[in-house]
Amino acid sequence: MAVGEYPFPHMHPVKGVKLTAVSAGIKKPGRRDVVLFELAEGAQVAGVFTQNAFCAAPVTVCREHLSKAAIRYLVINSGNANACTGEQGLLDAKATCAEIARQAGVTTEQVLPFSTGVIGEPLPVQKILAVIPDALAKASEQGWDDAGAGIMTTDTRPKGFSQQFDYQGQTITVNGIAKGAGMIKPNMATMLGYIATDAKVAQPVLQQLCREAANKSFNRITIDGDTSTNDSCIFIATGQVNLPEITSPDGELYEKLREVVLAAFVHLAQCIVSDGEGATKFVTVAVAGGANQQECLDVAYAVAHSPLIKTALFASDPNWGRIVAAIGYAGVPDLDATSVRVHLNDVLIVEKGGRAKTYTEEQGQAVMSQANIAINIHLGRGDCAETLWTTDLSYEYVRINADYRS
Amino acid sequence: MAVGEYPFPHMHPVKGVKLTAVSAGIKKPGRRDVVLFELAEGAQVAGVFTQNAFCAAPVTVCREHLSKAAIRYLVINSGNANACTGEQGLLDAKATCAEIARQAGVTTEQVLPFSTGVIGEPLPVQKILAVIPDALAKASEQGWDDAGAGIMTTDTRPKGFSQQFDYQGQTITVNGIAKGAGMIKPNMATMLGYIATDAKVAQPVLQQLCREAANKSFNRITIDGDTSTNDSCIFIATGQVNLPEITSPDGELYEKLREVVLAAFVHLAQCIVSDGEGATKFVTVAVAGGANQQECLDVAYAVAHSPLIKTALFASDPNWGRIVAAIGYAGVPDLDATSVRVHLNDVLIVEKGGRAKTYTEEQGQAVMSQANIAINIHLGRGDCAETLWTTDLSYEYVRINADYRS
Repeated sequence: MAVGEYPFPHMHPVKGVKLTAVSAGIKKPGRRDVVLFELAEGAQVAGVFTQNAFCAAPVTVCREHLSKAAIRYLVINSGNANACTGEQGLLDAKATCAEIARQAGVTTEQVLPFSTGVIGEPLPVQKILAVIPDALAKASEQGWDDAGAGIMTTDTRPKGFSQQFDYQGQTITVNGIAKGAGMIKPNMATMLGYIATDAKVAQPVLQQLCREAANKSFNRITIDGDTSTNDSCIFIATGQVNLPEITSPDGELYEKLREVVLAAFVHLAQCIVSDGEGATKFVTVAVAGGANQQECLDVAYAVAHSPLIKTALFASDPNWGRIVAAIGYAGVPDLDATSVRVHLNDVLIVEKGGRAKTYTEEQGQAVMSQANIAINIHLGRGDCAETLWTTDLSYEYVRINADYRS
Repeated sequence: MAVGEYPFPHMHPVKGVKLTAVSAGIKKPGRRDVVLFELAEGAQVAGVFTQNAFCAAPVTVCREHLSKAAIRYLVINSGNANACTGEQGLLDAKATCAEIARQAGVTTEQVLPFSTGVIGEPLPVQKILAVIPDALAKASEQGWDDAGAGIMTTDTRPKGFSQQFDYQGQTITVNGIAKGAGMIKPNMATMLGYIATDAKVAQPVLQQLCREAANKSFNRITIDGDTSTNDSCIFIATGQVNLPEITSPDGELYEKLREVVLAAFVHLAQCIVSDGEGATKFVTVAVAGGANQQECLDVAYAVAHSPLIKTALFASDPNWGRIVAAIGYAGVPDLDATSVRVHLNDVLIVEKGGRAKTYTEEQGQAVMSQANIAINIHLGRGDCAETLWTTDLSYEYVRINADYRS
């Protein structure tokens, strides 16, 4: 199940990025499950990762390698998360990097490993090692479609973004792919996201933009409130475009690039929500009028995580009492219930501590029957605002997660 | 659906408490939906209430009346929560109290109102006023069974407790009834709980014991993480037993009473969990080895609220990776994943950051197939511990909350 149309776009090549997906037999036979990125020399790489204390072995290795070396290869397997695998998990992740390094003539630290899938099973490292020669041979600038499909697990469709803009006669490309459908409440980044540009960006600027964009996109979505052990988001700048390096977060080129990069992150994050496990609704929760950002987020997450609201959304039931109950228990200090206003899309439903006089059930029903619903909350106590995106809770969510060992 | 057997007990009378349930036509025709308690003069009453900022009108009135007067009557309607009803809701709650007071010859402030049911609909106050004479006439010491049924909404069974103990030749009785099945994550008390004893207890001691007992029972259960707008828990001591008043929280009689009262609160709280909407499992989440109480609670709630864990419980799937993921994102500062141990009942499943060497899938499956499951977590960083109780997440939960306008 998935909400709306998010077709996989035509992916322009990004100069300096070659990639492919091959089949190692980790997922069902015939499905591609190992993706390899090959980056041109000089590429800069930034990353943000899960804050889960039980972070997966590859996340630990990524953090270490990113801090030590110029990254040239990324290897991603789907079907096994290599999480909660103890010391052996770290050895397996490093063995994968070491073998790619050996065959490609780089150092082990120049390879970043990623895994997504079942938690707690040993990584089938021999299967991965066996397909490395094939992956290295096949990597090409045309590999984005295959890579987008190769990183999927319970996703029903691949998620991609590709956009170009011109600057001083040069064309700059921003591409991205992501995966994720369950265990989604990223705290740094989504399950897995890879965004690449051929612009030339200094690493500190790249890292800062990666963090800002993740905070406005992947860190503002939630499907089930479960923060994964493997969340990783990587932002690559190959520097292959014939333009000066961006060395500080300002100037016309930086602003143009930032705009497209933010669009890429937000699009991929929204793709993940629209493909949320069992999702039948795409829900925007926008909280304004807060005294600070945190209380806006607290209210937004309380609404987005409430199983009662999520089941009402599934039922297309304008059960607004559940929304105000969630606002009320979100922990906002000294919240004055009579100053809170709630709109469903542009229909005012709650004001002065009760149902709006103008509200009719038909108005609410008309909004709730749509696939895209905005819950707009105004706290009436300040100027801060936060927006996040989520889904409903359906039979299908229960079926997927009761049947599937993820 | 409900887990296990929690039969409604034989209810001993509590001297000084008369009660009944009558039918006012708020719920489906023929179902009793208005409950009246009549307390003997001299009874002491303590209460704890929801912390939801959108607390219901009757909660506001209860707080006010409790602080002002010696309570003689409690009136409870089911089928309508009188929550998010603005100024009119307060007027309706007070009108109900005033009419009982007029007919019974007490003051309005000596009556406590309670409501449970649909949020945001105007209270059908005329229907309630119409049955007051009948309720006042019928109240008797034998009314506990009827009252237990009369406060139900989505509950599939009434929840009761009755126990007696002897002290210096006198018999002391502790009774309780409660309701609640969804929108359950009490923050003070459950949806509605009424516990009464004929012991003589000074009000400050009663209030303190009420708070302590609620914190160890109703405030340690969660079904869906949604804190209701109407949670109220009332503890009554009629003082009709011929024994000295308990004026401080110590001494043999206090300790004996406290033990039975704690048992009453915990039993009623567990009854609510076992009758949780769509519940097929009764789950105890016990966290020990924490550096402080709060981090134990944070971990316990992260596990208890995770939809992924709850669906795995529904599927009887020992998917322990989801448990460690939840522990990992619970926000415990500097948690060392390698020091955490997790048992399912007494089966060790996780240690040293990964699956226990001794663990087999068959062991986990044997535990998960049971209706009563304990998830025992040791954080390995201190001596604090907390326990709470919850349910699984089933198709039936989604059906109930997608179909039912609560």
